[in-house]
Amino acid sequence: MILINGQPENRIPVSDRGLQYGDGLFETLAFRNGELELLEQHIMRLQRGCKRINLSFQHVDSLRAELAMLCAQTAEDSVIKIILTRGSGGRGYKAPLENEAIRIISSHSMPEYPEANQSGVTVRLCEQRLGLNPTLAGLKHLNRLEQVLARSEWDDRTISEGLMLNINENLIEGTMSNLFIVKNQQLLTPALTQAGIAGIMRSKVMEIADSMSIACHEKALTVNDLLDADEVFLTNSIIKLWPVKTLLHNDTNTHWQHGALTQQIQNALKDLAH
Amino acid sequence: MILINGQPENRIPVSDRGLQYGDGLFETLAFRNGELELLEQHIMRLQRGCKRINLSFQHVDSLRAELAMLCAQTAEDSVIKIILTRGSGGRGYKAPLENEAIRIISSHSMPEYPEANQSGVTVRLCEQRLGLNPTLAGLKHLNRLEQVLARSEWDDRTISEGLMLNINENLIEGTMSNLFIVKNQQLLTPALTQAGIAGIMRSKVMEIADSMSIACHEKALTVNDLLDADEVFLTNSIIKLWPVKTLLHNDTNTHWQHGALTQQIQNALKDLAH
Repeated sequence: MILINGQPENRIPVSDRGLQYGDGLFETLAFRNGELELLEQHIMRLQRGCKRINLSFQHVDSLRAELAMLCAQTAEDSVIKIILTRGSGGRGYKAPLENEAIRIISSHSMPEYPEANQSGVTVRLCEQRLGLNPTLAGLKHLNRLEQVLARSEWDDRTISEGLMLNINENLIEGTMSNLFIVKNQQLLTPALTQAGIAGIMRSKVMEIADSMSIACHEKALTVNDLLDADEVFLTNSIIKLWPVKTLLHNDTNTHWQHGALTQQIQNALKDLAH
Repeated sequence: MILINGQPENRIPVSDRGLQYGDGLFETLAFRNGELELLEQHIMRLQRGCKRINLSFQHVDSLRAELAMLCAQTAEDSVIKIILTRGSGGRGYKAPLENEAIRIISSHSMPEYPEANQSGVTVRLCEQRLGLNPTLAGLKHLNRLEQVLARSEWDDRTISEGLMLNINENLIEGTMSNLFIVKNQQLLTPALTQAGIAGIMRSKVMEIADSMSIACHEKALTVNDLLDADEVFLTNSIIKLWPVKTLLHNDTNTHWQHGALTQQIQNALKDLAH
């Protein structure tokens, strides 16, 4: 089911700037056990994103009501996607001055990931590099061609994710997830000042780490930092947390345990309604 | 009028990857005096772009027929936009393996630029920087948030274009045009290996310069190179060529003449059907 500004509708005008220029933002949320997980955090990220791209988003309460309407029609656990676009109008790249964001919300079946992913997945390194773009870094905007190209590099279902470097060979994230490394009982995660998406689950993990007095540092990381890690895990709003057990890299495999600190974070993420 | 895969239709599915991820390419052509200017060059760029983003585009002949159909309905000089998207399907960023490109073509009224632009325009420098992205540089893809943000910086109709630097302070292009500098009877234009769109009119100017034995170099350029230029001009498929007469920069204005070499190129661009 799809609602556009509250109306059941599965098509948008070709003139929508979301299509024409990728002029918009999105969010992907888990609807699990009758709850939209971390809804407030997702809404706050949308608001921050709108501010950064100068997109008016006054109708937050309408969005909440529409999400409730969508979820009421959704019996099972689902993925809920919110897209905000700048709508139609303007002249070429020049945006209309006063467009309120168009709200497109849709529900999708939850991906059927193997249960075994909870104890560890296999990942690869992508050839596709992330560009450097400080003004857009961190944002979950609609310009995602880099991720599409990275994700097209493999078709082997036993590989759950591809890790991406930026053009300076800094490790940034997975194609659809954020990356954490455990080293000496501390968490490290790539700084997202020049590339990458600052995930809601990434923030949640940092918040949990803080509440457990586990140090967590955002910093520039390389493949060597990864190879040198004690534990490795990935996060996003749908998977929550996947430990990484194997990295395929230059015909050699690197292995990690499903370690104690990863398990501690994973347990803390179990009940996530808020 | 809009045709999608040959059918009159002004909406696309929300699921289209062009909206979801900016997963596609576009072209903007001038339909002038009953001719689609530089059509073959635009089609070749689409084909090159599709190859770079692994998008199947077999139905080139259908596109030609659809453009003919659209232009037959278009009495006046118009802007014709072609969008190719990867269509719907796939799983998240993972694209379907065999999608043929969706062809969206539309006609739009020609922008009413002042006739005086032919002898010189005023431009500014944008604050918004272009990111570095060697794998996508040159392509006219649908990820254009940088241009949207740059173009939102001014609302003064006497400023015709904004010039953009990349994050390394190299001068790259205008928000909707390519940039040429004349220096010592030679043409210089920014190398587009890390950012920017390699315009069809840019290529045409380089071809014309070659045929006139005017040297043209693609190289890294800075604002100082611009300030030091003998003549400056902008190109794109709709405007063809605008000389730059004034640059607004740090409260000082820099002026250039509508010089001889610029006029020579401008004259050569007058008849452009092929």
